[in-house]
Amino acid sequence: MSKKDNILIIGAGLCGSLLALRMAQRGYKVTLVEKRPDLRNIEQDAGRSINLSLSDRGLRGLRLAGVEEEAIKQCIPMHGRMIHDKQGNTFLSKYSGRENKFINSISRPGLNMLLLDAAEKMPNVSLFFNHGCESVDLENASATFKNYETGAVTSFKGDILLGTDGAGSAVRRSMFNNRDFLFSFSLDWLTHGYKELTIPPTENGGYRTEKNALHIWPRGEDMLIALPNMDGSFTVTLFLPYANSNYCFENLITPEKVHEYFHSEFPDALALMPNLTEVFFENPTGPLGTIKCSPWNSFGKSLILGDAAHAIVPFYGQGMNASFEDVVVFDEVLEAFEEKLFSGTIDWKKIFQEYEKARKKDTDAIADLAVDNFHEMKEHTASELFQKKRKLETAFEAAFPDNYSSKYSMVTFNETISYDEAMTRGRAQDKAILNLIDDGELSENMPLNEKLILVKRTTEDILNDNAILGKLK
Amino acid sequence: MSKKDNILIIGAGLCGSLLALRMAQRGYKVTLVEKRPDLRNIEQDAGRSINLSLSDRGLRGLRLAGVEEEAIKQCIPMHGRMIHDKQGNTFLSKYSGRENKFINSISRPGLNMLLLDAAEKMPNVSLFFNHGCESVDLENASATFKNYETGAVTSFKGDILLGTDGAGSAVRRSMFNNRDFLFSFSLDWLTHGYKELTIPPTENGGYRTEKNALHIWPRGEDMLIALPNMDGSFTVTLFLPYANSNYCFENLITPEKVHEYFHSEFPDALALMPNLTEVFFENPTGPLGTIKCSPWNSFGKSLILGDAAHAIVPFYGQGMNASFEDVVVFDEVLEAFEEKLFSGTIDWKKIFQEYEKARKKDTDAIADLAVDNFHEMKEHTASELFQKKRKLETAFEAAFPDNYSSKYSMVTFNETISYDEAMTRGRAQDKAILNLIDDGELSENMPLNEKLILVKRTTEDILNDNAILGKLK
Repeated sequence: MSKKDNILIIGAGLCGSLLALRMAQRGYKVTLVEKRPDLRNIEQDAGRSINLSLSDRGLRGLRLAGVEEEAIKQCIPMHGRMIHDKQGNTFLSKYSGRENKFINSISRPGLNMLLLDAAEKMPNVSLFFNHGCESVDLENASATFKNYETGAVTSFKGDILLGTDGAGSAVRRSMFNNRDFLFSFSLDWLTHGYKELTIPPTENGGYRTEKNALHIWPRGEDMLIALPNMDGSFTVTLFLPYANSNYCFENLITPEKVHEYFHSEFPDALALMPNLTEVFFENPTGPLGTIKCSPWNSFGKSLILGDAAHAIVPFYGQGMNASFEDVVVFDEVLEAFEEKLFSGTIDWKKIFQEYEKARKKDTDAIADLAVDNFHEMKEHTASELFQKKRKLETAFEAAFPDNYSSKYSMVTFNETISYDEAMTRGRAQDKAILNLIDDGELSENMPLNEKLILVKRTTEDILNDNAILGKLK
Repeated sequence: MSKKDNILIIGAGLCGSLLALRMAQRGYKVTLVEKRPDLRNIEQDAGRSINLSLSDRGLRGLRLAGVEEEAIKQCIPMHGRMIHDKQGNTFLSKYSGRENKFINSISRPGLNMLLLDAAEKMPNVSLFFNHGCESVDLENASATFKNYETGAVTSFKGDILLGTDGAGSAVRRSMFNNRDFLFSFSLDWLTHGYKELTIPPTENGGYRTEKNALHIWPRGEDMLIALPNMDGSFTVTLFLPYANSNYCFENLITPEKVHEYFHSEFPDALALMPNLTEVFFENPTGPLGTIKCSPWNSFGKSLILGDAAHAIVPFYGQGMNASFEDVVVFDEVLEAFEEKLFSGTIDWKKIFQEYEKARKKDTDAIADLAVDNFHEMKEHTASELFQKKRKLETAFEAAFPDNYSSKYSMVTFNETISYDEAMTRGRAQDKAILNLIDDGELSENMPLNEKLILVKRTTEDILNDNAILGKLK
């Protein structure tokens, strides 16, 4: 084994911090540079997303770096979607028919601090905060940064540069602007924006509604969701069209109008948010976009990962999980090729290309699934046909835990199935079940195991029919 | 009717020239500004694409502006794809089983000149060449231009601004860079590039191979095509991966290697191109990209159309046709709303939004179909299963001309079916036929009309099954 290279990582958010930790564990010398102040020293912003869904794929990344147990201490399990209708009735739609399958609500800054602490303990990690990236030299794995405290401009250089600087990535922007190679890029905005609100704890620090669920108020074109925090509060997010709707961000511009809207659409949530209108006007309205691009590496010297390479909308609760899985896949590729890298048989370019080959179709898939889930959450969850499907799938998973997984389960609870495979199989399965129900082919008195056989056969037929283009090669 | 507004059109290519002509015919005062010199005064570039496919949708646009007949005089009909195998064997795959259905090869500069001549004859059109757009003020429908002859910078302003400045649109770029609204944008490059070559005329000015066909040499990952010109020559285009292939642009860097490649893959084409290697190294290698974006208008003042709004890859021969159809659709929307515009009941923003609502899904569809056709042309046309499908479809169209249209026919020969509808129905139909053939359900001795019934029923089943998500609303 030859010496390990220097790695410059730009962006110490969730993905960058985990990546730095893991690369340091592999023996590389890591310089980790972050634009923002060290969040361990400052009070948290109220306006930014402060809790996130953590599930199996994300946990696997944390496990790889030995910090899963610490993270789990910060988790609140959520066993299903608690659906709230307009009359304030609720019902719980479980995420899985299997026992002990749940997702977790976790504080974003809390988890980030945990990862920074672990990275900082490594002797081969240097951390710099308050350093905003001003320019990137992709070909030479170097970048200049402005120190926001002193105003000084510094330059850092690695043997390679890894960009984990999020959806607004400066590294990706410099790839986009570079004319030396063809960089495919897409940015798709939803016509909806989001705004964070809050349900405060009760006076004794308890929860004002069911703690162990992800709450949804689906209303067709708009939707409210809520995830629990450790302090008894819930972070609530409103998803609403910007314009062209009875109620939209463009016309919710007075406290009266906001109150009227919540009173009409989310009366039970309104009752839990005593200071709704203040918070509504304090917090910013954010846009919701999907970013895809390729190639992820430039000149075999610089590579982007996490949101920088594939920002997705939040509706599958997979953004952080996908970024952590990036670290797992990158680590696997390194594991497979590192010896050749050290012996000089291959270079980093090969590693980067193998990583993208292994990973790109999956991040594309979760991006598309997340947009699908936007429609599912705001609209389909309120549909009778959809609810019948969920009921059947929950029954399948309970009765045949080793023989059936819903699309949601494959995406969320099964990290051995890739996102791409989960999408392909899951979509076929959804189509099969919905059409079988709609055509009346799953009669009430058909035994459950026969229903399962029929669903599986129909799913296979759909997959086979879809595969026909592959036979034209 | 109140006075007609001033329209500033940027870009006098095919789309801009036809749009200027049509808007002038509707009575608007048009200022048409073009970066390039007036192509009526200069010799033509050899390196740029010099002939294009013109079919029903494009002809409809020309008809609307009264220039169809003139254009048809420049057309060479192509009745089908002439497929060339590696041994130099050829067979003609007709575009339609119907009589008198063909596409046309037409000179791009010739058609552009025809449109400029017609626009220039209108008293309410002002034409400026050699004026490169330097900056755009989207909100005020104005732009500054550099006069490439004098170096002077001029400014033009309209009541509205229409950007028809092509795939590299300056108007679109200023929309992309504007932070006042969310602009969704995608640019997808193929990993293939293209290079134009030529088959010269015979010594007596005749054609060296069949004149009335679009020639294809499909080779799986690469492909050669040829379209006839009026002077007896063919414009040949090579589509080839940039890299990572036995033969690719990265390694075709010596005359010997180019000759070896053509000798191995396209021996019959090589025999028709005496100066192949010279032309190969004279002409540039061009990239192939798809651009989608939205919204097409900014501030209700500026709108992009044609390639500026939706550049597509050339494989369906629909680029120009789609742009001309833009003019037809924009004209229809104007026709429907112009009275309200004049009376002040609505503004241009409404017109622009209605136009995008009517048009966007169709330009998205033809963009996707064009990428599909890349794979079909280079790969599927050589497959036996695919050829069986085409044979069956040609038989359907010949025997039941009023009762069957292939996807290709819907896209190319039926301008009353939108691109989106052609894609949805055409893909279902392709899937039905391919699976029926592959499953052996269309036996030799089944009468043709029974085959048609089975194909139609299977297609409807597929469409119905696909529509299930619509039932979750």
